Order: sequence, then structure tokens, then C-alpha cells
Amino acid sequence: MMTSQNRLPQLRKDAITGRWVVFSPARAKRPSDFKSKAPATASDHRGRCPFCSGNEHMCAPQIFRVPPDPSSDWKIRVIENLYPALDRNLKDADFDGGGGGGGGDADVLRGFGFHDVVIETPDHSVHLSDLSPREVGDVILAYKKRVEQLLTFDSIKYVQVFKNHGASAGASLSHSHSQIIALPIVPSNVSARIECLREHFNQTGKCCLCEVPSNELLIDESAHFVSFVPFAASSPFEIWIVPRDHSPHFHELDDNKAADLGGLLKLMLRKISIQLNDPPFNFMIQTSPVHTSVSELGSTHWYLQIVPQLTIVAGFEVATGCHINPVFPEEAAKVLREVHVQM
Amino acid sequence: MMTSQNRLPQLRKDAITGRWVVFSPARAKRPSDFKSKAPATASDHRGRCPFCSGNEHMCAPQIFRVPPDPSSDWKIRVIENLYPALDRNLKDADFDGGGGGGGGDADVLRGFGFHDVVIETPDHSVHLSDLSPREVGDVILAYKKRVEQLLTFDSIKYVQVFKNHGASAGASLSHSHSQIIALPIVPSNVSARIECLREHFNQTGKCCLCEVPSNELLIDESAHFVSFVPFAASSPFEIWIVPRDHSPHFHELDDNKAADLGGLLKLMLRKISIQLNDPPFNFMIQTSPVHTSVSELGSTHWYLQIVPQLTIVAGFEVATGCHINPVFPEEAAKVLREVHVQM
Repeated sequence: MMTSQNRLPQLRKDAITGRWVVFSPARAKRPSDFKSKAPATASDHRGRCPFCSGNEHMCAPQIFRVPPDPSSDWKIRVIENLYPALDRNLKDADFDGGGGGGGGDADVLRGFGFHDVVIETPDHSVHLSDLSPREVGDVILAYKKRVEQLLTFDSIKYVQVFKNHGASAGASLSHSHSQIIALPIVPSNVSARIECLREHFNQTGKCCLCEVPSNELLIDESAHFVSFVPFAASSPFEIWIVPRDHSPHFHELDDNKAADLGGLLKLMLRKISIQLNDPPFNFMIQTSPVHTSVSELGSTHWYLQIVPQLTIVAGFEVATGCHINPVFPEEAAKVLREVHVQM
Repeated sequence: MMTSQNRLPQLRKDAITGRWVVFSPARAKRPSDFKSKAPATASDHRGRCPFCSGNEHMCAPQIFRVPPDPSSDWKIRVIENLYPALDRNLKDADFDGGGGGGGGDADVLRGFGFHDVVIETPDHSVHLSDLSPREVGDVILAYKKRVEQLLTFDSIKYVQVFKNHGASAGASLSHSHSQIIALPIVPSNVSARIECLREHFNQTGKCCLCEVPSNELLIDESAHFVSFVPFAASSPFEIWIVPRDHSPHFHELDDNKAADLGGLLKLMLRKISIQLNDPPFNFMIQTSPVHTSVSELGSTHWYLQIVPQLTIVAGFEVATGCHINPVFPEEAAKVLREVHVQM
């Protein structure tokens, strides 16, 4: 295989997001040399960490815990965010007065919504990827349970599950946790994705994400999921984990598949940690809007996206939405396939 | 005026980008307390800096200089980027083999394009905002001249002018410079913006950016430009500078307006530097695609966008395209109006 150094630059348009990505070998190190300069290793503030076992009183109210029986120690807690982006106590998401100004009319809604935290472990020194495959699966099932609760609110149009690992990826506390934000709108990236997937379906009669990626892009497989580097990855070593069976919504996942996903997610997180020097990363569950029309259910397919934060998003990317990726996806996949992980 | 602390969260949809923004007072400091924790002040590496006067031999080839006469010292140099994202020597942007894999078909183009650097001053210790209004205007005229040259290439569909200030905003060299990337495609953010502006025009018969922003959002005005915080600003203290007269393309700017813009741009950069502790920032010239149809020329209007980098873009923003902004635009505008600057 050619290395980045002797490849020419290329532009690829992602079929799912509709965005162009510039693959730019002149800006690359060797793919095997890619390491995070700022490893995300937790700073220790045991005792003052609100997410640690024993400090529950420092947190906003609990929504539920796993296991539910309060006579045993908790393994996972789902709580309200102490500094929520949206307010769960507002009376739904009504129109909030006139827009206007700043260059024209604009839609305005009251900031109704939910912003929750999933504490993945009671132990400050444990990362998500240190848990067993089944325990990672239990965290995924906690996401699912909370998403299902949030879907019962009429005004909620989209639920975003995400994890920030490392301060430079947006984690303000180092204790391993994820977040769930339920929105009264469908975000523009989600609408654009649904539209791209529908176009692909209309042209080919197939769901874009049911198609098996080429062997060059594949990293690993489990009983129910495949993991690969997307053909037009916007970031170096970006990974998607996609259910093999067609499934529009994440919350359709059953216990068996959650445990299976737990194993593959753990493996991918261990691989990037070993290969890239414990990089800051984000992962996001890319699901479908709550109200997805029957005609769209055939073309939309949820997936989990992992993005190690190894490059800086600067003026060009902010302006255009077009990312510059110095590592070709085929090379990133090869490196990630070959990382040896002891599970 | 209410401060963030006693406001409720709100969602606003930007009429120009089509994106929702969450305004979230619970996550705010007082707007007047907003400071960069990582000021962008230049690390000094005089002598080894390729952009300093005397080190021209360390740079990629020069495209032009200001003034052109080689018997006088240069004030501005436009050069090729030594590590270009795209390759100017490829034979135009042809289709580059089959797509496929990684979740479906994808468009693929050869990475033809241009990636240039504008060195704004020969002096390592001088920032853009230290130059006189006329000198800033001369930098803007250098952008214009290079954009006009790039437009003569048939395959070029969009030209992005941008500046990264500070390492965390993507500036790999501290010597004051900007960049110009000419692309063989129209990026998705640009298509989305053109589409939003067209919709607004179709609904109202007016160009969205010709409308005067409300006094609450206004920061300052010059003979030919207004500067304001956009109604649905995606970042705290984001500033737009918009030409008063309808103008689809940046490169239509004349010398007189460039000097006028130079003064207002300098003022805005000085204001954020004083108020926000020399924050890292990006600015981007948001113009129209090279081939804009006659029917779209009435609705598209270029502007310059300044984004101080004060918050971290994390999993939620990457997934949804929806930003969480802790500072309401009206409060940011008030703070910026009141900063006293000695010019």
C-alpha cells in the first residue's frame, strides 16, 4: 500500500453527511507516527470529584441508577447536569417572541429540553474502556433506557448521546461519563444526514449504511456490528461502528446486541488509546429524529461515531464545513487493524 | 438589560446558516468576565521564522509582493504554502476513480487547488491589529488581488480567505499571516448559506444581509460597513462585518471601501483583544461561489466573520452542528460597544 507521502491529495464527498473532505498527504506524518501530544489522562481530584462514589450529594438530582436496588452499590448513575444547556422545567418549547435583527428574521424557541449525565463507573480511576464488554454494554443500555424516557415528551424532536474524553475534547470533569441532550428541534446536521441517506436510497434502492465497507476500510467485526474508517473520514483515525441489520433508531437495540456493541466499542477505544497515546476523543450516537416518516425508515440507519481529537479545527473548517484530513482512511484502517489489544 | 444569570435558555435559528444555537445562561460567567485563558501572544522565534524579513529563502515561492518594486522593502508578501492542502500542479480537478466502500458511493476528485499564505507584515512582533487602518486595508486588497487571480482557473469553484490567530485557533506560525484556499468544489456550508439566503429572499423580497441589525446587536459602523453580533451567534463575542451596499462577492470591493473596512476590522480586533485578553481567534471572508447564477445574485451578500475561540467544540456540537453559546448576543454587543479603544 502507498503511504501518505507518495499519494496525491484527493477530495472525497461523504455520502452520509454530504460534506467534502480534503485528504492532504503533504500535511501528514507517517500514519503510524500519529500520536496525541496531549494525552487525556485524568488529573486526580479524588475526594472532590462529584461523580465518585460517596459524593452523590454534590450532584444534581439522580434520574436512575444501575442496579436499581439501593441496598447494593451503584455501578452506573444517570443524573441531571448541574449546568444544563437546556431547562427541563420550562413549559415545553413554545415560540419565544419575535426574531428579527442581526440580519433578518430568525426562529426563536424557549430553551426547553433535557441535559443529563451518565456516570459510567463509581471509580475515579476507571475509564470506559477499562470496563468489561458486558459492563460497557450496561452503559449503552443505560443510554437506551434514558433515551426511551425522553421520547415520551411531546416536544422532544431529537436526542443526542455523546461522550467527551479529555479536557481538550470538552470533558470538564475527568471522571468517566457521557451526556445526553434532548432537543425541541432537529439539528441541521441531522436533517442533512437524513436527506443524504434518502437521496442515496432513491438512487440505488438501498440503505447506504447497510452496504458492507470495503476490506481496505474495515477494522473489525462482531456478531451484530462492523467497525471501519469511513471512506471520507473528516478526522484522522475516525471510526464508525454500524449495526449489520438495518435499524433507524439507536433505542431499538436489545440487550444481546448492547453487550455485543460493548465489546466492539471497548476494543476500538483500546485501539486508539494504544496507537494514538490516549488521545482526547468524542463519540456520538448518530440516530434518527423521534418523528421519522415511514418513507424515511428504510433509508436511515443509526451508528456510533468515534473521533479522536488529533487536529485543530481552524478558520477554513469553520467557514466551509470542509475538513482537511492528513491521513487517508485506508491507511488509518490498516494501522487500526494491526494494533494488538489484550482484552 | 438582563444579565445572563437571570435569563432563561433560548434556541435561535440563524437565518443565514440555517443552524440552531442554544443560548444557555446556566453555563455562563458574567459576559464582562469572559477572558481567554490561553492568550494567543506570539512566542518569539525571530531568526528562525520563515515569514520574517530576511528569511524569504525559507519560504515556498512568492506569488506577488506589496509594493511590487523590488528596490524597496516589502510590506506584504503573498506566497505558496509550503505544506499545501491541495496541489496546484495537478491537471485540474478530474474525477479520480471509483468511490464506494465505507457506506456507499462517494464522489472523488483529484486534489487540484491552491493554498496560499498572505504575510501581513515583515515584522515578527507586529499583529494585524497593530497596523494602521490603511495598512490593514492594503492586506485586504492583497486578498482581493489574489482571489481575482484564482478566479481565472476554470476548475476553481470557491475561494476561502481566512486567518488563524493563536496556536489553539490553528496558527502553526505566530508571525501574523492569513491564508487563501481555492477549491474545485463548493463546500456544504457555503451551499447551505446560499440556499438559506435565497429562501429568505423568496419569502420577503429582500436580501437578509442588507437589513440593518437592531441597535441592541450593533457594535459599530463606518462609511461603508456595519459590525454587529449576529442574532444567533454560534460563539460568544462572534462579530460580523457586513458591507452596507448589496454585494455578492468580496472581490468586488474597491480601494476606498477596503481602506474603510481596514479601519473597522482593526477596531473590532482591538476590542476583542482588550476585552477578552488577546484570545485566539479565526476570521473568515464568507463570499459567494465563483459561478453564482443571476437569480442568486440578488440574495447573496458577502461578510467577514470573526470568531474568538473561547469555548471548546465537543461531541454535541460535532454531532449536531448546533452550538451552545453561554453569552446572549445582546449582552456581547453591549460589552463590545463599551470597550474603549485608542486607535
